[in-house]
Amino acid sequence: MALNSSYLINGNLNQSISPFDRGFAYGDGVFRTLVMRKGLPDFWRRQYQKLVADCSAIGIVCPSAELLMSDLQQLFSIEDVAIAKIIITRGEGTRGYTPPAITAPTRVVMKSKMPEYPQQNFSDGVHLCICETRLAMQSKLAGIKHLNRLENVLARMEWQDANLASGIVEGIMLDMQGNVIECTSANIFARYGERLITPSLDLCGIAGITRQHILDIAHTLSLAPAIEEFDLNKLYQADEMIICSSLYGAWQVRSIQNFVNVHQKMWTAGNLAAEVRAALKYD
Amino acid sequence: MALNSSYLINGNLNQSISPFDRGFAYGDGVFRTLVMRKGLPDFWRRQYQKLVADCSAIGIVCPSAELLMSDLQQLFSIEDVAIAKIIITRGEGTRGYTPPAITAPTRVVMKSKMPEYPQQNFSDGVHLCICETRLAMQSKLAGIKHLNRLENVLARMEWQDANLASGIVEGIMLDMQGNVIECTSANIFARYGERLITPSLDLCGIAGITRQHILDIAHTLSLAPAIEEFDLNKLYQADEMIICSSLYGAWQVRSIQNFVNVHQKMWTAGNLAAEVRAALKYD
Repeated sequence: MALNSSYLINGNLNQSISPFDRGFAYGDGVFRTLVMRKGLPDFWRRQYQKLVADCSAIGIVCPSAELLMSDLQQLFSIEDVAIAKIIITRGEGTRGYTPPAITAPTRVVMKSKMPEYPQQNFSDGVHLCICETRLAMQSKLAGIKHLNRLENVLARMEWQDANLASGIVEGIMLDMQGNVIECTSANIFARYGERLITPSLDLCGIAGITRQHILDIAHTLSLAPAIEEFDLNKLYQADEMIICSSLYGAWQVRSIQNFVNVHQKMWTAGNLAAEVRAALKYD
Repeated sequence: MALNSSYLINGNLNQSISPFDRGFAYGDGVFRTLVMRKGLPDFWRRQYQKLVADCSAIGIVCPSAELLMSDLQQLFSIEDVAIAKIIITRGEGTRGYTPPAITAPTRVVMKSKMPEYPQQNFSDGVHLCICETRLAMQSKLAGIKHLNRLENVLARMEWQDANLASGIVEGIMLDMQGNVIECTSANIFARYGERLITPSLDLCGIAGITRQHILDIAHTLSLAPAIEEFDLNKLYQADEMIICSSLYGAWQVRSIQNFVNVHQKMWTAGNLAAEVRAALKYD
């Protein structure tokens, strides 16, 4: 048990990580974060498929779904509504970037408390800021939920009042060219009439499973989904904006604070996030 | 003991890393690699100053030099010529990018065998390739030896014969605009007459201590050092090229293989690497 949490490493309780693990040494691995309810992971098929794809993108053979499900069921009780984080690394190595000829991936399943999100995030919406930290553009790693997350860490350190009432809950990250990409821990959608657009993640950002899920079900809301590049000016012209995550589904964005030029964009209340949550069966 | 190696974590022998350590979760930390001889670290003043600067750049308070030196002396005997790797992370946290209000950095000191470099790397020089994996441009992280090293890992996985006689020992990494930046584990210098230039690392790459050391002593070799942007065409026009690292000082580059366009650049034997090693007192 660590910090009110517990974990399994390669199926073993309360073991730990060698500093020679390449996940620690180089961030050489990938992860997923998901909600456990009644002993089962939400959206497991999507989560596992993305985990396999992300592993494959950096040349790691993903452990089987059966192994991971066994770990999850060992760690989470039927009563828990809690967060599972799965980390898969390339495994232990010797010093230096060259991977061993034969590597055994390290498989970590961790349990954390469900965050206590304020009810008003769901009912009224949330407030965002613009992060000064930009996302570097790297097509070989874009979209992958890998362990090299220093940009997200630096961006998240830029504001501090996420837990206050009416505090800023997320920060928007732009790429080096000023395109809107994502929030530090969420993807972004903007509605223009019947069009629902989300940024292209071909050069940076993490392609979350909830983003893909929303793209898949948009037509049930009579919306035409599209992946496009857009900048802040275009975003400010949206009829509605939402952010999405597998932890809370979707939240309506009510304002964006730009600390750099002391500009604030505000939206009136909207229903898109609630409709999306209903379509995703989050309500 | 792990893989013929041993380590101290926060001064304790054979402890290990929690998966909640932010170094593991996000690559939220920095590192140094150095040679230990007669129980002492090579170039300790430069190494420690850079460690402090890199910690500071991402908001980590570096442990004292006394603590680290105590760890090194506990782990390495007077007889060892071996590699020490120091990793400093932001410490343990809870799930999510937000660092805890108070963090205690995790301090890891690891021991590895000294690589058995072929003598001809020093006497005859080495062969390089051009990596397809490019370096993303991120001014907030450029120069820092941080733990987000997936680009280096992917680049290093591009070739496999580093340990063969006449094998390729290093790969040159370019930035997204085609500028020469560094090798996967080494910095680069090119000599044009009496000018000794090394790439700018303002947007990507790791600013190694040996690179800075060479810039500092270049005048003793009657060379005028400079930091400049240059591409492969400019590099191929150099009179001599060397790569440098704190593990071996400097090696003369004899050829660069470009697998993409099946082009090979070759240089005749040169003395620059030997002169640099002598000036750095590596011989």
